[in-house]
Amino acid sequence: MIIHLKDNINAEQAAGIAEKINAFHTVSQGKNVLISGSGMKDVPNAIEAHVDQFWVFDNDIQLASREYQDEKREVKIGDVTIGGHQNATLLIGGPCSVESEDQIRDAAQLLVGMGLTTLRGGCYKPRTSPYSFQGLGLEGLHLLAKMREEFGLNVITEARDATHIHEVIEHSDVIQVGAKAMYDQGILRACAKTQKPVLIKRGFGTTLKEFVQAAEFVLSGGNENVILCERGLRTFETNTRFTLDLCGVAWLQEHTNLPIVLDPSHAMGYSYGVPVLAKACVAMGIDGLLIEAHRNPSVAKSDASQQLNHSEFKQLLDQIRPVAESVGYKII
Amino acid sequence: MIIHLKDNINAEQAAGIAEKINAFHTVSQGKNVLISGSGMKDVPNAIEAHVDQFWVFDNDIQLASREYQDEKREVKIGDVTIGGHQNATLLIGGPCSVESEDQIRDAAQLLVGMGLTTLRGGCYKPRTSPYSFQGLGLEGLHLLAKMREEFGLNVITEARDATHIHEVIEHSDVIQVGAKAMYDQGILRACAKTQKPVLIKRGFGTTLKEFVQAAEFVLSGGNENVILCERGLRTFETNTRFTLDLCGVAWLQEHTNLPIVLDPSHAMGYSYGVPVLAKACVAMGIDGLLIEAHRNPSVAKSDASQQLNHSEFKQLLDQIRPVAESVGYKII
Amino acid sequence: MIIHLKDNINAEQAAGIAEKINAFHTVSQGKNVLISGSGMKDVPNAIEAHVDQFWVFDNDIQLASREYQDEKREVKIGDVTIGGHQNATLLIGGPCSVESEDQIRDAAQLLVGMGLTTLRGGCYKPRTSPYSFQGLGLEGLHLLAKMREEFGLNVITEARDATHIHEVIEHSDVIQVGAKAMYDQGILRACAKTQKPVLIKRGFGTTLKEFVQAAEFVLSGGNENVILCERGLRTFETNTRFTLDLCGVAWLQEHTNLPIVLDPSHAMGYSYGVPVLAKACVAMGIDGLLIEAHRNPSVAKSDASQQLNHSEFKQLLDQIRPVAESVGYKII
Amino acid sequence: MIIHLKDNINAEQAAGIAEKINAFHTVSQGKNVLISGSGMKDVPNAIEAHVDQFWVFDNDIQLASREYQDEKREVKIGDVTIGGHQNATLLIGGPCSVESEDQIRDAAQLLVGMGLTTLRGGCYKPRTSPYSFQGLGLEGLHLLAKMREEFGLNVITEARDATHIHEVIEHSDVIQVGAKAMYDQGILRACAKTQKPVLIKRGFGTTLKEFVQAAEFVLSGGNENVILCERGLRTFETNTRFTLDLCGVAWLQEHTNLPIVLDPSHAMGYSYGVPVLAKACVAMGIDGLLIEAHRNPSVAKSDASQQLNHSEFKQLLDQIRPVAESVGYKII
Repeated sequence: MIIHLKDNINAEQAAGIAEKINAFHTVSQGKNVLISGSGMKDVPNAIEAHVDQFWVFDNDIQLASREYQDEKREVKIGDVTIGGHQNATLLIGGPCSVESEDQIRDAAQLLVGMGLTTLRGGCYKPRTSPYSFQGLGLEGLHLLAKMREEFGLNVITEARDATHIHEVIEHSDVIQVGAKAMYDQGILRACAKTQKPVLIKRGFGTTLKEFVQAAEFVLSGGNENVILCERGLRTFETNTRFTLDLCGVAWLQEHTNLPIVLDPSHAMGYSYGVPVLAKACVAMGIDGLLIEAHRNPSVAKSDASQQLNHSEFKQLLDQIRPVAESVGYKII
Repeated sequence: MIIHLKDNINAEQAAGIAEKINAFHTVSQGKNVLISGSGMKDVPNAIEAHVDQFWVFDNDIQLASREYQDEKREVKIGDVTIGGHQNATLLIGGPCSVESEDQIRDAAQLLVGMGLTTLRGGCYKPRTSPYSFQGLGLEGLHLLAKMREEFGLNVITEARDATHIHEVIEHSDVIQVGAKAMYDQGILRACAKTQKPVLIKRGFGTTLKEFVQAAEFVLSGGNENVILCERGLRTFETNTRFTLDLCGVAWLQEHTNLPIVLDPSHAMGYSYGVPVLAKACVAMGIDGLLIEAHRNPSVAKSDASQQLNHSEFKQLLDQIRPVAESVGYKII
Repeated sequence: MIIHLKDNINAEQAAGIAEKINAFHTVSQGKNVLISGSGMKDVPNAIEAHVDQFWVFDNDIQLASREYQDEKREVKIGDVTIGGHQNATLLIGGPCSVESEDQIRDAAQLLVGMGLTTLRGGCYKPRTSPYSFQGLGLEGLHLLAKMREEFGLNVITEARDATHIHEVIEHSDVIQVGAKAMYDQGILRACAKTQKPVLIKRGFGTTLKEFVQAAEFVLSGGNENVILCERGLRTFETNTRFTLDLCGVAWLQEHTNLPIVLDPSHAMGYSYGVPVLAKACVAMGIDGLLIEAHRNPSVAKSDASQQLNHSEFKQLLDQIRPVAESVGYKII
Repeated sequence: MIIHLKDNINAEQAAGIAEKINAFHTVSQGKNVLISGSGMKDVPNAIEAHVDQFWVFDNDIQLASREYQDEKREVKIGDVTIGGHQNATLLIGGPCSVESEDQIRDAAQLLVGMGLTTLRGGCYKPRTSPYSFQGLGLEGLHLLAKMREEFGLNVITEARDATHIHEVIEHSDVIQVGAKAMYDQGILRACAKTQKPVLIKRGFGTTLKEFVQAAEFVLSGGNENVILCERGLRTFETNTRFTLDLCGVAWLQEHTNLPIVLDPSHAMGYSYGVPVLAKACVAMGIDGLLIEAHRNPSVAKSDASQQLNHSEFKQLLDQIRPVAESVGYKII
């Protein structure tokens, strides 16, 4: 249940009321909002006098649901806004991993030259083998921060686990919660306490319901700037790395109010399929597209097969722009 | 291995040579073609003198592979051609099941009014319960044939099992091999002996390799008019009926030379998601789109939730046309 | 809905009543039984006077359900009975494919020497590639029949599609409906018209509900001798060929009244894992175990990696016998 | 590559050599062991003189592999030893969540009364909804510690994320890394630095290879006391909660040297199926069995449907003991 309290109640009082009924308390657009589990179907008598409006739910997708708020939410990333009625698809590019200053600067220059604003690059890589390249860690974060200063780019990077989430929050403009980390409450609860945008990737074995509930951890904790990212399910098909779930995207667009970013690079796993999949994604009217690009994919320290080279990345923009326009969107 | 025999060898001699090495023999574009399993890596000495050209393969995707023929094949459906360099997406519409003459005529009139050419409608429904509506069978086929005569439409309908495959071949313009029937060699071998186009749907538990190998049954048996249709995988996600595998489509486009039709209706299972998925499909540059539409979905005898009504179907065309154009395709 | 008609109604009258309400009619243990879809929740007024007893269902698992008949059904295979209170696990052995008279006789002699009664061997192989060995077909059926005559063995073999189902029914003692054919209504409806036992394998992409509904096709058509066989699901895990679903077996034991046979050979795909999985299967108290064994697996024409050699097959019996006894079963 | 250094090299020197080739260094059974990625196929010249023995691998399953060490490892939990040649299956019982002192003491008394030694109970619950019961946290750990003191039981509990891993390490006898946390390097690396046993559960979307690689994080970091736990995959089948992968267990037994514990409770999701699945598990000759039991499952704060009540748990022991004996194992 979501409850909007009356305007004469201040935040402190609201927190007290929340505690009484064991609910979360947040302030949203000047409103005191209480959120309890969907098991609560009636407003408790004890607080009835303070309630302005309330919503009852079948399941624990509450703040993110269209029943609660029918308009798609807006999220600001630096000066850029996505979601809402922007009808804009933010093209985010950059390498799988930050490998060196020289390499990440090349990527930053590519983006700037194309008029793009948002640079991706992994610093804490969630590798499944301890014997693979694990990322540059804090050093990588510093390199991303440097690119922001030099080029005015927004940067997005991933937290692998809760031990370094505060560093990631400090140094990035969008905090990425990776597919393997999206159940990590240490990360989710930390993200709830900042106001920076949080991009949550769907786990490859994660249901739509669990995916949106991960967003509920952040939303109910007080951060409304949540973006959902679909990047492919693990299925029996092994000729592609994962199976991009665009049926699931149609479901998310219908049932949730959160901006949606798609990542065809990880889903496909092979660069040859990325442009054609990117066109499919953009045709759905989405809020962002996450594409891995590396100046020389063949020597990349991770995900070599799926990264576009810089020339392919430039072509990609030319390919997806008319598709975006055909559905009333612009690529930003 | 695929072998092209020299031009001085006639079909009868070619058949004899095929038998000698236990290979399939077909005639394609005037050429005598032998096909053996991919295990054969060298031309047998005994036939070497007759060989013009040959191709060796890693696996049993041979005739359908880009290594053998790099150009996408053309398939003619009545006067309409898809595949090749047509850059055309054939919009196929109609109800899940043929239910009555009145109902299927309404569907036919809808298509004709929209300038479309190809009517779908199931007669032998592969229902998983014996207690559900099983389709009108032969009576349905006769109704479809009537629509062809009245309106000049091409019709496509599904064979459920081998007991009625010859009736389906006789009465339809495109023979649909359904997702549950695509391993059925009784059906596939019968389809190989006609020259009518065959649309093979991928099973929901079928790998890309097995899918294309089903096409190889038809191709190696002598029918080159094969179309592949992706309609969704069965995954752990149950908020949508299936999971449309567009990564798989990217793989098929890269590795096979067969035209591709997509069916977002069955994948999604809910009409609200069909238009947005259809846009994603069309943006990939595909040869056809299979959409279920019913004059009154709420009373449909099968698949009620996923069929568009006629007004939604008309809107769909308006929605997908600009997307097709944005990738250089036209909807036909 | 299942309806038992009163005893004063003869079969002909019963058929008439069935037609009136569009239901199936069978005779079971001297009772006239009508079966309609689970959508029917009330006995139609028109036939009320003739009804002795009736059962209402949530879904289309009706004749196979424990709500209808709580006791596990018995099925006779020649002189052998499984199911019911037999507490017996029938060990069925033999090669994947019948390859030659000599080969299948070796297998038959192995079984007879071990005191076993039931020989398996494929004649129509449902291969996914047209370029693989497809089985000996009718010639294989004749070889199996010969083994029955020579050794008094019961034989079980698979129908691949409806074109040869009548031959399989004629020549085998148990008709196997394979994992790829279990939606094939041409096969299922033919099986419903014989009284020979039918073993239905679960498709690798088939839900438990669909699986049992395939059995309902046979049961409602008049053949009560149905056996269910679990042989593994297709999942993302590729280090084993399939994933044997023993949770599903626990569900089947709880909710259905049909005997259950397990096939660890196909599930595992590698002979090293067959014995230990066979022990797990037998510990569940099952009615049969299907094991592939070949006199020389390395030269087998199909499924080479998963077949036990004859010595391993003999050891298997020694390994599973104490496990069966520990749960109150005997291996027969 | 795994390298055993010569005996004349001390630990400090070994660490230096490891650094030189960018390898992990551990000491195992008095040996200095270096581990590098499986990409290394030759011993580097620079260190050749110090190498006693080395192993080359196809993939990053190295320390856990039978190629490196063919004998199953032993792990000590308090006074109890599992693995190796113990032929013992440790029955671990207790509630899903620690809910109160009274409740967990009841569970402890049950175990002690049955002669069992190891109590499970969740304190940090990895719930997918923020609105569900999240566990008692540190208070729960203290209750478990109290049970250890009162009853001499070993306790096992789960770390949900890296923020509280050190508390879990401090208070439990076996650290459980849950299915949703098993990619969490913050947890895995912390577990590598203790010598307490670590039980890693396989994620429901995790391949066998990734599962064992999670163990490699702990092993290569210096803790050899690793136990693998299979608890079910997420598949398309929803009539059971998950699909227990016993084919995967057969693979693990063949290819890895780590003790294996099975958790049929989570896999099945319904108490009715737990005993029969437990028998299947035990018949495979496993090192432990994890069963959820609650004094009153109907009021449990989590996983109500799958927990046995105390009387069922006692019966379970009677049911599995003869099965264990039939494969030469004892329940401890």
